[in-house]
Amino acid sequence: MTDDDIDLANVLADAAGDAIRPFFRTRLDVEDKADASPVTQADRAAEAAMRAILAVKRPGDGVIGEEYGADRPDAARVWVLDPIDGTRSFIAGRPIFGTLIALLEEARPVLGVIDQPIGAERWIGAHGRPTTLNDVPAKVRACPTLDRALLATTGPSYFDAAGLVAFERVSAGARETMYAGDCYNYGLLASGHIDLVVEAGLKLHDFAALVPVVEGAGGGMCDWTGAPLGQASDGRVIALGDVRLLDEVLARLG
Amino acid sequence: MTDDDIDLANVLADAAGDAIRPFFRTRLDVEDKADASPVTQADRAAEAAMRAILAVKRPGDGVIGEEYGADRPDAARVWVLDPIDGTRSFIAGRPIFGTLIALLEEARPVLGVIDQPIGAERWIGAHGRPTTLNDVPAKVRACPTLDRALLATTGPSYFDAAGLVAFERVSAGARETMYAGDCYNYGLLASGHIDLVVEAGLKLHDFAALVPVVEGAGGGMCDWTGAPLGQASDGRVIALGDVRLLDEVLARLG
Repeated sequence: MTDDDIDLANVLADAAGDAIRPFFRTRLDVEDKADASPVTQADRAAEAAMRAILAVKRPGDGVIGEEYGADRPDAARVWVLDPIDGTRSFIAGRPIFGTLIALLEEARPVLGVIDQPIGAERWIGAHGRPTTLNDVPAKVRACPTLDRALLATTGPSYFDAAGLVAFERVSAGARETMYAGDCYNYGLLASGHIDLVVEAGLKLHDFAALVPVVEGAGGGMCDWTGAPLGQASDGRVIALGDVRLLDEVLARLG
Repeated sequence: MTDDDIDLANVLADAAGDAIRPFFRTRLDVEDKADASPVTQADRAAEAAMRAILAVKRPGDGVIGEEYGADRPDAARVWVLDPIDGTRSFIAGRPIFGTLIALLEEARPVLGVIDQPIGAERWIGAHGRPTTLNDVPAKVRACPTLDRALLATTGPSYFDAAGLVAFERVSAGARETMYAGDCYNYGLLASGHIDLVVEAGLKLHDFAALVPVVEGAGGGMCDWTGAPLGQASDGRVIALGDVRLLDEVLARLG
């Protein structure tokens, strides 16, 4: 991963935002067919734009995208794209969805972008460098104990029954629990406004970009057993602004 | 309610936004005392700014504010202020909280403002006029049946046990359920992106501004029995983009 890769990630995020913005808050009668929905059109247009750039700039790299599947997924370098993470927020007109762009090297995420194209907010995390929000360093905040933690998760419906019970044990110990937010929560965690995110059901394209952003801001991410996230992960994810919270969170997830 | 009142409501919202923005995403170590929290400071500064303007411009009108209580609450005209509705969103750094400003005449809300000062979004509803978002007319969308409806509510913790069961009957029949959002959900409903909001625990300062915004966009608001909202309301609120949903929602709330 080089400076050129970071520059390219910015170009990809710019292209995705340009593709997405015209569809945001497009009026849609609820009777319209799902295939023609603004979110589907925006999703496809943004991923197509990013893939077209990668095909020119990095023809040998692999690409895994939420909309158009995998090309060369076993390449040493693989770009992982989720053009709209937080489709419910997009549909409802809330400017807290995001475009996720990750670069994996030997299956490990070394570069991640969380881009919010309506509010023009872009978190970039790159292995070995400080995470930035709009080019200004972002830093997690101290939060040594769960009873002081602001906990976020996208929604209870993302957990299975046992997962929800485990999540609620964490929530019961936290200072506050907030719903919604998707990838945006991880950016806010990296910037020191949220302390903890606990989720389930995340796919590689949902979490790969988050790891460098959170780690580069001083936080940590892992699965519900404390193991690093990877392509074989089961989609159960923890993000911590202050890694001292980990033992207490794992004990409650139990 | 006159054009002058609408102009004044804009001045109040501008003043509140100016008072709030410096505190948004202020870094706060979780150890800091609650009294000094940015959200508390922003709340107080915004309400104080609005009250100072009202004292000069409308010395005879009543004022009811979330932070500083009631002055002349029995006046024929009463301004109702909630400087930051959605304090959790504010604290977490999400730009989906809002400032609420309402004017009551003979205890009925005739003017309402929902202002989002970070994204610079302002819904204004005034009795007998079309609701606007940033001066452009806003309109609800058609959604004749619950199974097509996008339902929003701020969070399950705002309901009591019986209320949560009732809410979940509505949610089970809706196409999608989204959490978080506070007053912002009602603006998005007025603009035709959300179809239904069902909440409980709202106070006068939480709902007074919403009524003119929703009604002026073609929607409707009432309590869980279908009765109009007023100062004696129990805080259980329904907002409908398409009033044809009402019977089905009331039946499920039961």
